[in-house]
Amino acid sequence: MNDEDYMNMALDLAELGQGYTSPNPMVGAVVVNNDQVVGKGYHKKVGKAHAEINAINSAGESARGATLYVTLEPCNHTGRTPPCTGKILSAGIQHVVVAMRDVNPHVKGGGVEFLQQQGIRITTGVCEDRAEKLNEVFVKYVKTGRPFVTAKCAATLDGRIATKTGDSKWVSGEESRAFVHRLRHAVDAIMVGADTVKRDDPSLTTRLSGAKGRDPKRIILDTRLSISDKAKIMRLDSRADTMIITGPGISAEKKNRLERKGIQIIQSAVKSGLIDLNSLMDVLGASGITSLLVEGGGRVIASALKDGIVDKVIFFYAPRILGGDDGVPICRGTGPVLMRDSIPLKNISVRRFGDDVMIEGYIDKR
Amino acid sequence: MNDEDYMNMALDLAELGQGYTSPNPMVGAVVVNNDQVVGKGYHKKVGKAHAEINAINSAGESARGATLYVTLEPCNHTGRTPPCTGKILSAGIQHVVVAMRDVNPHVKGGGVEFLQQQGIRITTGVCEDRAEKLNEVFVKYVKTGRPFVTAKCAATLDGRIATKTGDSKWVSGEESRAFVHRLRHAVDAIMVGADTVKRDDPSLTTRLSGAKGRDPKRIILDTRLSISDKAKIMRLDSRADTMIITGPGISAEKKNRLERKGIQIIQSAVKSGLIDLNSLMDVLGASGITSLLVEGGGRVIASALKDGIVDKVIFFYAPRILGGDDGVPICRGTGPVLMRDSIPLKNISVRRFGDDVMIEGYIDKR
Repeated sequence: MNDEDYMNMALDLAELGQGYTSPNPMVGAVVVNNDQVVGKGYHKKVGKAHAEINAINSAGESARGATLYVTLEPCNHTGRTPPCTGKILSAGIQHVVVAMRDVNPHVKGGGVEFLQQQGIRITTGVCEDRAEKLNEVFVKYVKTGRPFVTAKCAATLDGRIATKTGDSKWVSGEESRAFVHRLRHAVDAIMVGADTVKRDDPSLTTRLSGAKGRDPKRIILDTRLSISDKAKIMRLDSRADTMIITGPGISAEKKNRLERKGIQIIQSAVKSGLIDLNSLMDVLGASGITSLLVEGGGRVIASALKDGIVDKVIFFYAPRILGGDDGVPICRGTGPVLMRDSIPLKNISVRRFGDDVMIEGYIDKR
Repeated sequence: MNDEDYMNMALDLAELGQGYTSPNPMVGAVVVNNDQVVGKGYHKKVGKAHAEINAINSAGESARGATLYVTLEPCNHTGRTPPCTGKILSAGIQHVVVAMRDVNPHVKGGGVEFLQQQGIRITTGVCEDRAEKLNEVFVKYVKTGRPFVTAKCAATLDGRIATKTGDSKWVSGEESRAFVHRLRHAVDAIMVGADTVKRDDPSLTTRLSGAKGRDPKRIILDTRLSISDKAKIMRLDSRADTMIITGPGISAEKKNRLERKGIQIIQSAVKSGLIDLNSLMDVLGASGITSLLVEGGGRVIASALKDGIVDKVIFFYAPRILGGDDGVPICRGTGPVLMRDSIPLKNISVRRFGDDVMIEGYIDKR
């Protein structure tokens, strides 16, 4: 076992916190003494102990003289919990291996420099790429104060998310749909347009098989508050809130009626008849939403892309062809005149879910 | 090295004939004596020696007592060349390992049964799947008399092959485009619609880097013979023919003028204003075209899919999003009302070409 092996073990542990740590990052840690793993830990939930503390506690006396592998630079400040650097020193850790430095302005540089001053050996950058990807949400959020936005859709190979009548059951297969529920579990909020609510009447909850999932907040873009009182999302048994984002001039009577059902109505800035998504991202970020999954429809996905709020794209392609141009497209609205003015993606990766193909990429914001 | 290893070696050899063997299959053969490869061969070109003959000749005296690995059942009839079974016997081969039986009604069963009667040990079905895929064109053609049809397109992730102005340079990357030239090299003919000729003015030739490519026949669907005399395909320096498929009632003057340029004009059956593709496939098959690459545009691809002539689909997705519904879609025309009535594909496979993703699948004709 080398540094990378131990760090990958720590990263695997970190992932166990997925869906529970927001607005904190996912962090994992492994304590190694004489080539033996003597302690393991991860950050289980916001407000609970940090990964380093759990790992050092599980190592007990074996932490003395040991190496600590931790996926994120240990904190050197008192936040919801006391600083981890103190625990590292008092436990007698001699060497700290870090995957990525903390990008949080409250922490940056603190942990590593402080430990070095105290005579602890430090190695950084081990499995840095994987650590950065694991915490892409945290990195974006602490740097910008806005949620990390993923646009998701499921389409036929010819790029249709539904037929002309709106039928979309099922474009994608079971395995893909199960993965979407894992995505929902991992994010703070899902966003869809009012058209999608009208067409699909989705519940937008997390249904994981064999595990308790966490429902994200549900955000509906509905400029004119046109949503039906009978929509499923109005009468959910879910611990997560439903928020409707409207423009100005909506019916006060309907607003009050929906609010009495527990729905949050947020009146937001409007630009050319549509919710101004950039200003909305500031509002959502300020309310503590660190990650947002945009699930459609075509108009919302296209607006999100054009307004530049999207960080990552996850498109599922089902092994079928609609065969006509009358189905619902992935993106609605006006496109560019030249292909070179289309929106470029980078870091493309591909996964299979049964017979579906998932293409994931990041918006290239150069 | 086991049977599979030797057969894969024979299949690799067979592939070297790609683009040159039509209407024959690609076949490779390896002669193994005492665990040593003593001979190799493949079918290089239609009319030239079969793979078994080349392999046995290259083995010389070492063929005596040896095992012959051959990707397709040896022929037992005299066609363009004498039967291979005779050569196998006279060379003293003791064991013949075959990947797939010959599906050609002129050959079926003949080779294997004849050799068995002569006391040769026979093993069949080694690497059968790979052999069948390698010769999917041959299998379809000898069974149906029609070409094996592949529909190909290159699109953005949101399913657009060009912008609203028809700009498509470049949707896909260099590696994908290079692969398309390898596809063209491998097929007997390419087919596009007159709209694609008007929009892209393509030359539809094979340009391979570092290798001499074979141009396929170019087939243009142009019901009303509306194609411009100035289109690039009218003035190509290519050994392959250009054929324009028209409906009835076209201008005799224009027909004569184009024919004088060496263009073949074929008047074909028309169904609801479009060339009847099923009847066209019979015509093309009868003229010896065993494989056809349909390269677009959206209307031709959709018609080919709807008319059921497509066997295989190769769609390239470039890492970009057009972001609007005004671009040129992969398929034009009327789609089904229900998603379950879309066209299902099977045996999906995925390949990367640079940052492009290629999804390949077979029409599920159940």
